[in-house]
Amino acid sequence: MKAEIITIGDELLNGQVVDTNSAWIAQHLGALHIPVVHITSISDKEHAIKNALRQAEERVDVIIMTGGLGPTRDDVTKVAVADYFGTTLIRNQAVLAHVEKIFRRAGRKNMPAMNIGQADVLANATVLFNDVGTAPGMAVERDGKYFAFLPGVPFEMKFLMENRVLPVLRDSYKSNVFVYNTYLLTVGIGESHLAEQIADIENALPPFITLSYLPKIGMVRLRFTGEGSDIETLTSITDSFKKQVMERVKDYVVSTDNRSFEEVLVQTFTASGVTLSTAESCTGGRISAQITAVTGASQMFQGAAVVYSNQAKMDVLRVSPDTLAQYGAVSEQTVKEMAEGAKRVFGTDYAIATSGIAGPGGGTETKPVGTVCIAVAGRSETRTQTFHFKNDRAINIERTVVAGLTMLWNILK
Amino acid sequence: MKAEIITIGDELLNGQVVDTNSAWIAQHLGALHIPVVHITSISDKEHAIKNALRQAEERVDVIIMTGGLGPTRDDVTKVAVADYFGTTLIRNQAVLAHVEKIFRRAGRKNMPAMNIGQADVLANATVLFNDVGTAPGMAVERDGKYFAFLPGVPFEMKFLMENRVLPVLRDSYKSNVFVYNTYLLTVGIGESHLAEQIADIENALPPFITLSYLPKIGMVRLRFTGEGSDIETLTSITDSFKKQVMERVKDYVVSTDNRSFEEVLVQTFTASGVTLSTAESCTGGRISAQITAVTGASQMFQGAAVVYSNQAKMDVLRVSPDTLAQYGAVSEQTVKEMAEGAKRVFGTDYAIATSGIAGPGGGTETKPVGTVCIAVAGRSETRTQTFHFKNDRAINIERTVVAGLTMLWNILK
Repeated sequence: MKAEIITIGDELLNGQVVDTNSAWIAQHLGALHIPVVHITSISDKEHAIKNALRQAEERVDVIIMTGGLGPTRDDVTKVAVADYFGTTLIRNQAVLAHVEKIFRRAGRKNMPAMNIGQADVLANATVLFNDVGTAPGMAVERDGKYFAFLPGVPFEMKFLMENRVLPVLRDSYKSNVFVYNTYLLTVGIGESHLAEQIADIENALPPFITLSYLPKIGMVRLRFTGEGSDIETLTSITDSFKKQVMERVKDYVVSTDNRSFEEVLVQTFTASGVTLSTAESCTGGRISAQITAVTGASQMFQGAAVVYSNQAKMDVLRVSPDTLAQYGAVSEQTVKEMAEGAKRVFGTDYAIATSGIAGPGGGTETKPVGTVCIAVAGRSETRTQTFHFKNDRAINIERTVVAGLTMLWNILK
Repeated sequence: MKAEIITIGDELLNGQVVDTNSAWIAQHLGALHIPVVHITSISDKEHAIKNALRQAEERVDVIIMTGGLGPTRDDVTKVAVADYFGTTLIRNQAVLAHVEKIFRRAGRKNMPAMNIGQADVLANATVLFNDVGTAPGMAVERDGKYFAFLPGVPFEMKFLMENRVLPVLRDSYKSNVFVYNTYLLTVGIGESHLAEQIADIENALPPFITLSYLPKIGMVRLRFTGEGSDIETLTSITDSFKKQVMERVKDYVVSTDNRSFEEVLVQTFTASGVTLSTAESCTGGRISAQITAVTGASQMFQGAAVVYSNQAKMDVLRVSPDTLAQYGAVSEQTVKEMAEGAKRVFGTDYAIATSGIAGPGGGTETKPVGTVCIAVAGRSETRTQTFHFKNDRAINIERTVVAGLTMLWNILK
């Protein structure tokens, strides 16, 4: 059982948009033991769509096509696909009612005539109702092969995959080769140092287990992938190697599953009944935004003060004017007072504070772009540290976020 | 003159890595008027590589292949490509000396034997010397078609494209067809309403201009693409249609180029010498983080108060306890006081405030998940609005951010 992904859109071909849908789809098909063997991005042209379908049908069993289902005339997928299957488009009244409801709900009196066409679906398809948008998905099963046609808008595609496509594939397109993935998330150790520390365990892996390093800024996720026909043996052998690695590098492991670092922190804080706030200058609210993006963060997160100006640092967090004058805004002294100020203002047990020069402007000889000070205030102590990043603005901000969260994790332990 | 990109690697097919190389390559080929018509990601398997090359050679004139050139045994690109061209691999002494130098420079005494193979190149290729890594690139020109084989590591690929491939393509594979792209960014109008309003202009477009709709949450970017041999005529005709559209929907246009909404806001505020702060509950600092991600935001952005708890709303922003008790945290009355509080605390000309139920928990019968109140305080008035989004947490947060920025844009005008 193999799969292919076809993404449609000139914005992918001219480089304006990076195709992130394919990786998401591939991950989710992989979890059902349906490996993706081919990903293709093509133009919104009928002949390109039909050619891609023909080649995919020769190669694989499951074909996921995204894009080109909007109401405007540059969206030609449905016409091309109907022609490919030798079928027609028929108006689906349930879809039409749904599209009309979306426009009513948005408080618009008149639905544009072109949206009526969104209710036209392939005569040979099962309609995949789209609760979060106006373009329905469609599924066609033919000669033991499964085709899904989904909108290209990521959250609509994800909704339809999760609620309409993956359940069917899980039930009806199971593979007899199992793929078992398990993860470790490490922070604060570089990829090659990590690899060096676990080289002997990696060398001893049997051929049916592969270890992959997935580095991101400030963290490395390890993925152990086992493939075989006996799921129980596979799971237990893979887990035993994972356990060896975990024990070897336990000081750096923050998660033994596929959770994000932020999810681990929110859940750890919530379980311990302790609370957090942030005082952010160079990160501009990014730490707060990433923490509060996690479901349930409102129990442990009380608030943040983004204090870009010195005045705001003094007014909101009561940073002393003397400290600012003597040491400057980017100093361990200032971030210490910011973190302790946030703890006090928001009444929390912990606080993170950041101040730095993200760039590209604002650097000086003594404090060049990339200089960042971070403080973490815990229950009984406040730790501070100065970092010297040397990257562009976006990366400096991201490095600061991860460094702050890592310092928080370390003080929590 | 058309191009195809083929990226090789199992990490792309299993979703572990998002293919960002293709968008970068496509942008740079587009700048030379060599449009990419097909992007394919395939496995590191010989038959997959040869099939992909065969199909690409039928379709296009320029083929850029990345990945599979590393020293380890899973990298089979060179062997497959040699077989495809009916040629052999020969050891290149200059490349060997370069690879050895890289190991010496890194302070390693012994170069692993497997790295010697990196000096083996296609007998029919021009070597593309890789100053920044151990894997050389290779270029083959056959029957008027150009093939480049490049490492998959993004910065090595970019080095070889910029220094070895693009100069050759610029000189020898110039297209006599020019592609001209120009953009409009609209907010606050749905894709189909927009299409309806400009249908007559779209109908009048000549065949060499295409109009594409690129919808994102709360906004639609329009792209006009003109193709032709006379770049001046092309540009002026395309621009004249863009101007007609711009005048028709001017109330919704925030940008006439490829800038983001946040960039437009930061630059508009900075040019007018006015300042902004935010008071965020359900968006958790996301508005602040997106604004401060823009270079130069520190002039116009003063700070944000993320006030998740009622206590913080009262303590930091002086929201009245009576207002919270009578109307609740998610109410137009509360966000009005939050916005005005932020203006006062941070001393800014404008402020945005958000409060809502992002979900999945926290909904009630009268205020279900997705209920969001937003206030924008301007110089002389504060506007408030209640929204009823109905999506998951991440989308509700993103919709709130865009709705808040759109209200800000409208009050600015």
